[in-house]
Amino acid sequence: MPIITLTTDFGAKDYFTGATKGAIYSELPDVTIVDISHQVSPFNIPEAAYIIQNAYGSFPKGTIHIIGIDSELNEENKHIAIKLDDHYFICANNGIMSMICAEIAPEKIVEINIHDKLTTSFPVLDVFVKVACHIARGGTLDVIGKSITEIKPIRNIKPYVNDDKTQIIGSVIYIDNYGNVVTNIKRSFFETIQKGRHFEISARNYTFKKIYNKYSDIVKFEVPENKRNDEGKRLVVFNSGNFLEIAVYKSNPATVGSASTLLGLGPLDTISINFIPNKVLTTPDNLPPNLSNANKY
Amino acid sequence: MPIITLTTDFGAKDYFTGATKGAIYSELPDVTIVDISHQVSPFNIPEAAYIIQNAYGSFPKGTIHIIGIDSELNEENKHIAIKLDDHYFICANNGIMSMICAEIAPEKIVEINIHDKLTTSFPVLDVFVKVACHIARGGTLDVIGKSITEIKPIRNIKPYVNDDKTQIIGSVIYIDNYGNVVTNIKRSFFETIQKGRHFEISARNYTFKKIYNKYSDIVKFEVPENKRNDEGKRLVVFNSGNFLEIAVYKSNPATVGSASTLLGLGPLDTISINFIPNKVLTTPDNLPPNLSNANKY
Amino acid sequence: MPIITLTTDFGAKDYFTGATKGAIYSELPDVTIVDISHQVSPFNIPEAAYIIQNAYGSFPKGTIHIIGIDSELNEENKHIAIKLDDHYFICANNGIMSMICAEIAPEKIVEINIHDKLTTSFPVLDVFVKVACHIARGGTLDVIGKSITEIKPIRNIKPYVNDDKTQIIGSVIYIDNYGNVVTNIKRSFFETIQKGRHFEISARNYTFKKIYNKYSDIVKFEVPENKRNDEGKRLVVFNSGNFLEIAVYKSNPATVGSASTLLGLGPLDTISINFIPNKVLTTPDNLPPNLSNANKY
Repeated sequence: MPIITLTTDFGAKDYFTGATKGAIYSELPDVTIVDISHQVSPFNIPEAAYIIQNAYGSFPKGTIHIIGIDSELNEENKHIAIKLDDHYFICANNGIMSMICAEIAPEKIVEINIHDKLTTSFPVLDVFVKVACHIARGGTLDVIGKSITEIKPIRNIKPYVNDDKTQIIGSVIYIDNYGNVVTNIKRSFFETIQKGRHFEISARNYTFKKIYNKYSDIVKFEVPENKRNDEGKRLVVFNSGNFLEIAVYKSNPATVGSASTLLGLGPLDTISINFIPNKVLTTPDNLPPNLSNANKY
Repeated sequence: MPIITLTTDFGAKDYFTGATKGAIYSELPDVTIVDISHQVSPFNIPEAAYIIQNAYGSFPKGTIHIIGIDSELNEENKHIAIKLDDHYFICANNGIMSMICAEIAPEKIVEINIHDKLTTSFPVLDVFVKVACHIARGGTLDVIGKSITEIKPIRNIKPYVNDDKTQIIGSVIYIDNYGNVVTNIKRSFFETIQKGRHFEISARNYTFKKIYNKYSDIVKFEVPENKRNDEGKRLVVFNSGNFLEIAVYKSNPATVGSASTLLGLGPLDTISINFIPNKVLTTPDNLPPNLSNANKY
Repeated sequence: MPIITLTTDFGAKDYFTGATKGAIYSELPDVTIVDISHQVSPFNIPEAAYIIQNAYGSFPKGTIHIIGIDSELNEENKHIAIKLDDHYFICANNGIMSMICAEIAPEKIVEINIHDKLTTSFPVLDVFVKVACHIARGGTLDVIGKSITEIKPIRNIKPYVNDDKTQIIGSVIYIDNYGNVVTNIKRSFFETIQKGRHFEISARNYTFKKIYNKYSDIVKFEVPENKRNDEGKRLVVFNSGNFLEIAVYKSNPATVGSASTLLGLGPLDTISINFIPNKVLTTPDNLPPNLSNANKY
């Protein structure tokens, strides 16, 4: 029996998630249900896209992902089911899947058309659960919808690169539980443009010339522990989803602050990366002094 | 093996929920446990009543619902177990069950009397889990308690109707994750009093003359998308639990605001509905102009 | 198949918990995963220690507890696995386990050394899951690490007692969902020092001379309900984990306030208990008047 996951903006208090699980277990008593997140900000499609993209790959092939964000059916917001990378995704056609589909081509997309048998003001419960259980029992997508080839895109999922490839302009797509600022610049994309050049990352008034492998790489372990002041230091890392992230070491948004609060960065804010031609580096006199510890990582 | 659900005010941080689940799995390794909510406001009985009423019906018959709100045993707060609608409910006799029991008569109510074998400062863990596992193994309520016929009521679960049935006075019972304002006026109750008449709903300084079927019915799809300003519009719907709800389209309490914050409505606040005699409608000249789009839904 | 529990500071929004569960189910489709808490304050080791200590004992023997707080591997923060009380714990060697280990001697501690086969910026997903699944399949700790005998301690887990044993100085280690203030003074420790003497507990400007068995023991049930004003009263109890706790009856941090907010007490704040020699009590004239209702509980 496959796993069914839930990603919604239902929050943790209301009856919506409990009712949804009850409906699934009523159809499939032995299924495993996993909450990915119910704390997507209300109606926030880029957040949901980021979360599901980074979570789904850890699940076994065949897992069915219900995504309940802005899922009320209307003439501009149809319901779809997608088979991609041997996983199934059920959601509204509102852009949520465009981030994943930009990386991996879907095997099949259908627009769900079982609504004539259902009247509902709770589509996750009444439609998505039905579709998920149909798939979990081995049913095909063709039975519950008609094939389509295009889904609705979302803006700002791809960073911009200028013509001579000396600059990437990205934007903030997510703030995580530690207040770290996640951008839409993926490691593979960055490295393709970088081609080994030095760089300077700018966000608000702050600049960074190095990207770390992990957070604690900023710690100077050679300094005695009681003389260090690493906590609260700003750094740039590629996070566990391989997105470029501006972080604060051991941040806590509720107490000492976080990258988001301390640097004043929120969703849609701009991050720019300027690349420095390698030939400059062969002429040390021309090297800007603050690049001395630049890292071509 | 039946499902055991949990509805509590334990929050998400403390060890209470984890310990409760550990105790259940220690007795019944193969049971399915489902969290309905642990974010009921501390000691808030109407909230818990609303959540459990709207969640339980999605679960299979035979499901056992543990409700851990204000459950410390004392001479005024006894523990009860109820069989109703082929579901089991275990909680304190503090009013939580009175909302469900007002709609569906319980088959059996017992006051739990196994406490002489237990000393506890954590009744959900030590008493409710024991009772739930007893029921899950097929045990009867008679073994763990003595039959009673009455449970403690809560106030404000029913709206008031005036003698000539021209007005309903309801109150706010719940604010959901989107900040939508749920009243104690159910669709069936409203329609019984309405008898097809036009109406005006008043809450604070706002009035509404229409009840929508779903949130996006307020959107003018005929207007090009970039010229619409539907987000943030106030509307009244019957929600997925069939309660009359004052909503804001695509609200987000943390950013653009919500019905609760924008209209200044919270629990126990009053909502009134005034019905307009149908004969007025047969004399168009007397029809107040802003009723032209009134809907007898 | 044993249970695997999760205690982290991942929060409820991010993909971290979902991805971790997906990885576990990919290895062990039939395992039971239980969330103990994902709301530990970021990097807060004493909070995590308190939560896991109070939760683990309710689970069956053989349960495997993954604790993901400050778990990034570096030269000062190694990964360990501990067998203790027939439970398994997997975490960083950062003090989290020192509270439990101070009460129960570990049977086995290993420093995990499987990292040469893994590169990761998400150690819970890539290392702890691997170790947990290894143990769940019946594997031994020796296979995944080398034995060590000491783990890193945390400060402030034990209260201080003066030389003549007339005073205990404890500190606040946890604020719970109700805003109740939990100290590091356990019932058994208190009673060993107390030896039946009267006492005065001081916290900020407040003093208490009685410790209750349960919260509602403060209610004067003999007074008619509408003439009582028990809600909001301050009291001291031993909580369900047997820690001395300063509470407010029916508190709600978001509305009426809580012990933490009303008394101004937070983590690391000091609580002192002064014991009064019993001989004073045999000379009633010398008994301080406000001790008349003191309780030797």
